[in-house]
Amino acid sequence: LTDARLYVLLSGAGCQAALDWTIAEAAAGGADIVQLREKTLPDGELLGRARDVRRWTRKAGVLFIVNDRPDIARLADADGVHLGEDDLPVREARRILGPDALIGVSTHNLEQVRRAVLEGASYLGVGPTFASATKQFSELAGLEFVRVASAETSLPAFVLGGVTTDNIEQVVAAGGKRVAVGAAVGQAEEPRLVAAALRRALRD
Amino acid sequence: LTDARLYVLLSGAGCQAALDWTIAEAAAGGADIVQLREKTLPDGELLGRARDVRRWTRKAGVLFIVNDRPDIARLADADGVHLGEDDLPVREARRILGPDALIGVSTHNLEQVRRAVLEGASYLGVGPTFASATKQFSELAGLEFVRVASAETSLPAFVLGGVTTDNIEQVVAAGGKRVAVGAAVGQAEEPRLVAAALRRALRD
Repeated sequence: LTDARLYVLLSGAGCQAALDWTIAEAAAGGADIVQLREKTLPDGELLGRARDVRRWTRKAGVLFIVNDRPDIARLADADGVHLGEDDLPVREARRILGPDALIGVSTHNLEQVRRAVLEGASYLGVGPTFASATKQFSELAGLEFVRVASAETSLPAFVLGGVTTDNIEQVVAAGGKRVAVGAAVGQAEEPRLVAAALRRALRD
Repeated sequence: LTDARLYVLLSGAGCQAALDWTIAEAAAGGADIVQLREKTLPDGELLGRARDVRRWTRKAGVLFIVNDRPDIARLADADGVHLGEDDLPVREARRILGPDALIGVSTHNLEQVRRAVLEGASYLGVGPTFASATKQFSELAGLEFVRVASAETSLPAFVLGGVTTDNIEQVVAAGGKRVAVGAAVGQAEEPRLVAAALRRALRD
């Protein structure tokens, strides 16, 4: 996790092409982590898909995180779970997943950053930074939050929310060292090239 | 579980009065099991409510089952989980909850009854039997299914779907020995009296 720079959030319906191909291409371009973010599948189907993604991510050599659901993460043998504001608290998710699981938390302000650190989060999502094609945000935390969050914590912090190849230089300039993207890779004609461009900007 | 006759499905919003009072009254009237059936709460709130209901059901001396979610059931120390067609399979839920948990499965035809038995369900829901005030059914399995399901399995089988004090005699006449009700108790002005009337019909 500490080496991870590029985190990709994908869903079956949100991908331009097939999910397995998109994962393989994103990984070939330099993605380190894939999150399965399915918001509408019934649980039985969700588990089936999570197990598919576990197989594909293992083959691609990237970490696999399940959105929202620690039970699905555990049953699919994922590396961890990502929790939003409405989800279970970190401590509760860890009771399901055990001490070694990666548990990520979305944060939108410094108070949430501090709480996530105290609760034992493994990494943070930091944003939303820009308007996004995947998700409607009520308020952007913006680049200023990237600056203060990066300075506040030593946990791996992935800047997210509308990050693309067009604005990643601004993220890096604000102190962002890691990003999480959805549509930028999932909706790309050539996910590998986009992932590679993002990864390159983060290396510089 | 083997002694249980009356199973009550409740949600906070679906109760005429406060949930804690309704649980206490239902138990006083003879309910043996309470299921928390919340379909719209975010996970964090759902866990909080499940822990409240765990406290209230313990005080009332009734079993506590969580609908759909084995992770919430485990974190709230519930006695088990109830799974519908779109939920996780019994075996997967048991991996989260352990061998002693009560795992119930909704069944609508004999094939589902046999599958649930083979997968290790602890009890069955059998229905839908009548049109319901709580849930829209696409097709009723009816009293004929109560007859064949009761004859097919020795697992505790709770007849559900629109069961009320008006039609419980038909359920009993069809071989039903246990029922699960929602609105009949949750929406009652006097849940205790309704529960007692249902329980009496099942004893006869």
